[in-house]
Amino acid sequence: MYRTNHCGELNIQDIGKEVSLCGWIQRSRDLGGMTFVDLRDRYGITQLVFNMETHPALCEEIRGLGREFVIQVQGKVAERSNKNSKMSTGDIEINAEKVEILNPSKTPPFTIEDQSDGGEELRMKYRYLDLRRNILRKNIELRYLVSRETRNYLDAQKFMEIETPVLIKSTPEGARDFVVPSRMNPGEFYALPQSPQTFKQLLMVAGFDKYFQLVKCFRDEDLRADRQPEFTQIDCEMSFVTQEDILKTFEGLAVHLFKNVKKIEMGSFPRMSYADAMKYYGNDKPDIRFDMKFVDLKEVSKGKSFKVFDDAESVLAICVKGCAEYTRKQLDELTDFVKRPQLGASGMVYARVNMDGSIKSSVDKFYDENDLKIWAEKCDAQNGDLILILAGKDSTCRKALSELRLEMGMRLGLRKSDVFAPLWVTDFPLLEFNEEGNRWHAMHHPFTSPNIEDIPLLDSNPGAVRAIAYDMVINGVEVGGGSIRIHNKELQKKMLKILGFSDEDASAQFGFLMNAFEYGAPPHGGLALGFDRLCALIGEADNIRDFIAFPKNNSGRDMMIDAPSSISLEQLKELGIELKKNE
Amino acid sequence: MYRTNHCGELNIQDIGKEVSLCGWIQRSRDLGGMTFVDLRDRYGITQLVFNMETHPALCEEIRGLGREFVIQVQGKVAERSNKNSKMSTGDIEINAEKVEILNPSKTPPFTIEDQSDGGEELRMKYRYLDLRRNILRKNIELRYLVSRETRNYLDAQKFMEIETPVLIKSTPEGARDFVVPSRMNPGEFYALPQSPQTFKQLLMVAGFDKYFQLVKCFRDEDLRADRQPEFTQIDCEMSFVTQEDILKTFEGLAVHLFKNVKKIEMGSFPRMSYADAMKYYGNDKPDIRFDMKFVDLKEVSKGKSFKVFDDAESVLAICVKGCAEYTRKQLDELTDFVKRPQLGASGMVYARVNMDGSIKSSVDKFYDENDLKIWAEKCDAQNGDLILILAGKDSTCRKALSELRLEMGMRLGLRKSDVFAPLWVTDFPLLEFNEEGNRWHAMHHPFTSPNIEDIPLLDSNPGAVRAIAYDMVINGVEVGGGSIRIHNKELQKKMLKILGFSDEDASAQFGFLMNAFEYGAPPHGGLALGFDRLCALIGEADNIRDFIAFPKNNSGRDMMIDAPSSISLEQLKELGIELKKNE
Repeated sequence: MYRTNHCGELNIQDIGKEVSLCGWIQRSRDLGGMTFVDLRDRYGITQLVFNMETHPALCEEIRGLGREFVIQVQGKVAERSNKNSKMSTGDIEINAEKVEILNPSKTPPFTIEDQSDGGEELRMKYRYLDLRRNILRKNIELRYLVSRETRNYLDAQKFMEIETPVLIKSTPEGARDFVVPSRMNPGEFYALPQSPQTFKQLLMVAGFDKYFQLVKCFRDEDLRADRQPEFTQIDCEMSFVTQEDILKTFEGLAVHLFKNVKKIEMGSFPRMSYADAMKYYGNDKPDIRFDMKFVDLKEVSKGKSFKVFDDAESVLAICVKGCAEYTRKQLDELTDFVKRPQLGASGMVYARVNMDGSIKSSVDKFYDENDLKIWAEKCDAQNGDLILILAGKDSTCRKALSELRLEMGMRLGLRKSDVFAPLWVTDFPLLEFNEEGNRWHAMHHPFTSPNIEDIPLLDSNPGAVRAIAYDMVINGVEVGGGSIRIHNKELQKKMLKILGFSDEDASAQFGFLMNAFEYGAPPHGGLALGFDRLCALIGEADNIRDFIAFPKNNSGRDMMIDAPSSISLEQLKELGIELKKNE
Repeated sequence: MYRTNHCGELNIQDIGKEVSLCGWIQRSRDLGGMTFVDLRDRYGITQLVFNMETHPALCEEIRGLGREFVIQVQGKVAERSNKNSKMSTGDIEINAEKVEILNPSKTPPFTIEDQSDGGEELRMKYRYLDLRRNILRKNIELRYLVSRETRNYLDAQKFMEIETPVLIKSTPEGARDFVVPSRMNPGEFYALPQSPQTFKQLLMVAGFDKYFQLVKCFRDEDLRADRQPEFTQIDCEMSFVTQEDILKTFEGLAVHLFKNVKKIEMGSFPRMSYADAMKYYGNDKPDIRFDMKFVDLKEVSKGKSFKVFDDAESVLAICVKGCAEYTRKQLDELTDFVKRPQLGASGMVYARVNMDGSIKSSVDKFYDENDLKIWAEKCDAQNGDLILILAGKDSTCRKALSELRLEMGMRLGLRKSDVFAPLWVTDFPLLEFNEEGNRWHAMHHPFTSPNIEDIPLLDSNPGAVRAIAYDMVINGVEVGGGSIRIHNKELQKKMLKILGFSDEDASAQFGFLMNAFEYGAPPHGGLALGFDRLCALIGEADNIRDFIAFPKNNSGRDMMIDAPSSISLEQLKELGIELKKNE
């Protein structure tokens, strides 16, 4: 036995006990007659005392050991004269009597502290050292806690976790599929799942009623900062349910998680239609930690010879509380912000509602004080507020104003990471038109049920058909989404046809699912939550990599093990493939 | 809302309630004035009654519906006149008042009953229907229960579940790796893990202390009946532990699982060295539900001019209780059994200890009654017992006798699937010599620590070095195994050298791990249990496919979705690979 206790548990009750501890040397302070060592393990830190007078050799030995050495120490628990109330073990220390070096350590390439001096590349290469840092260890612990509480909640709700296969079938639609050559079936490939969608639906057909899985999914795509080629989902599906049943169940999950992991009581989730989200926030995942809704000034601004507004499809404003004093420079910054190519607004108009009630705008040439008063009223602007206005093509205008709103929320400190504002966004459109491909795409996925009332519109006006689809949004982050699924073969066939599948393709790719629908498929629906993202959100952080034990970088590369890498010609040969020659 | 209750919960307390149920029509019995329908869901079966007198139209309608139709029914709970105490809902029935057909069903291609009339191929193609059968549903439920109780136990023991990556690095050693071409890194490949071995060791280096994961692993090899290309492990690792700590912890897990899933109290596990297992059972995973140990007759049989025994490296016997009356035909069968090419014994000798105490053998020409008495004594054979003897090369002889022992155990009904005999097998050899490759192989894996006492033998007599490695064996099934790992860079390097790695290869493949050992790696060890196999064992079945929701067949093919399959030239091109032309 290496240890009697770990480094986070000894306290005043244990005084006098002979103990044995193991851990890493976090730091060591030599005070002449005494040397103090902080011994660290996953559970905490315990102070060791080496006494030069009583144990001179031991004391000498310990002085020779550097940070991150792994030692085993035996000694007696004693009360500290100098207590540290911030530590669970802060009342005691160990008078060391014997030490064994279990493994020495070279000097780490960066400091194992909350604020490390290592750059991200270096830390990813030495991930096993980076993970020793408190902040990362706590993230991984939080991730485990979230997974555990997710399972506890869903188990109590009678969900069963069922594993679906990782080696599945590639589909031509799956342009972002990772594929896996099969040695036993030369020339053939498996694909890694982008989600277990069809399998969970088949589990419903099989009668499992309530399924969940914390499951790895895979997507081979250019990685944005917050994406990983492999990611984890909380994947769920239920039978004999309406949208209402699903929203209640998973609102319950979120409430349970925040309560049990964060000790935060969340109220019930407000709901907002997709149409309203776009109308008031220009965004299908609004951050409702703060208000600052869009106000439509089109009607009240027209006919005053201001061509920019008159010609614009939309004239939209937000009212920023207490910012009437913004300087010219600040306003110019905001104008530059919305004019960036990725937002593409052509300019920004402002109106200051001064403390004396007077209003001053950048378009005073066209609008007199009375006109501006009407704007202020529509915007519910008080003295001291700043009105920011964008005009132009509706979609551009909403997108840019949405970003401007988030920027202002940030500047005003309205987006606190420890405040959580959840929301269901519902009634998404079923389809969106892809100009490039000149065809309809499924906004959620091809298995999503249209709103039953809207089915007649599938032929006449597909763009107007609402889906029974919903997203869970927290603090402007899309935590997950789902839908009620189609469970009727004919409707599924029609849907695939609208999406441009030939009967042949539809049958080759989804024949097994459509056939399954003919053998008593129950009505069903579900959702999937992005687990990595959810953990980062609960952990009040932005970077999901910090919540993954061994993440890949933005090129999809594991810096530590150096993967992907080349493989031998022999391996390629056995798999029946070869690398494409450069042409 | 589709339903007020599920089909497994209504009982005598609920009489008079208006309820709504959903499910599948399991069967329907038309008794003229009444039609009885068994409505099935995951939770149970509830009897519906349709009354021709009071609801003639409804009754007509229900008579038109076939098996596996999905319906929603409303009605009132009533007490049954004809109670069925075998069913949880057997005291009540529902007087149906309204029915809605949620989805019709074609006639399934096989019957959804415990004994189905469908062959395995057909049932795998329609897996979603096969999974509706009670027996498979219960297997999947049991699998979930085992996973849940595994997590509960390990959580209580302070283990944390941490996800390790699925897209890792291929190694030349990994001849059975599945590989995944990377679109973003053309010409480079990820590999799917055969186990998370190096990652869990790095988690120990990172200080996580106790790690577990229920994790998918992958192996691209010819599939035996009980192997799958993707399989699930309960993977664990601990720091600052001896073998004893690990055995206790996971013996505790097994005890917990059998208690909570099977309501079986398992005692503590006996332990047996690898050497004893081979000596007494000819097998490193002995089935100790029954005794029938090997008895060495070499010494007592020599010098009697029976050349077969005199020339043999080993002469080994088992004593089969109460089988002295075996007929000539039965004995010939057993002889044929051991002479099969895969066992390769050259023949079998027997000796019957008759009820009158006389002994009759097939080698009476060479051994007189006194000689045979000595055999019987050594074998502890009583009147009525049968002694079976094999002779020849030691390894062949042990292997064949081990199989014969299992066969006799089977014939005598000593291998009951509801009796569980667990065992730790310890002290495995570290290395085994591979004649073909003319080099040493790691018996467990290259990261296994040699027994510290035996380290000096690494150079002089590698074959004699014992590993600190152990297997959990239950009923002759290797449920899992593990080892204490090497945590010292130099020892790891030496080990890899013995295994034939050049310094360069060792560093290219395992450099990250050996480097990690230089930064304060704690002593650590762990084990992995085969989850699919464990579930089958607990479920008292042989076929692991029956415990996997969507298994692959023996060619690694998913019959339902038809994977693997060919992919498009466009996909291949994007991945920078092409199919090898036939030469």
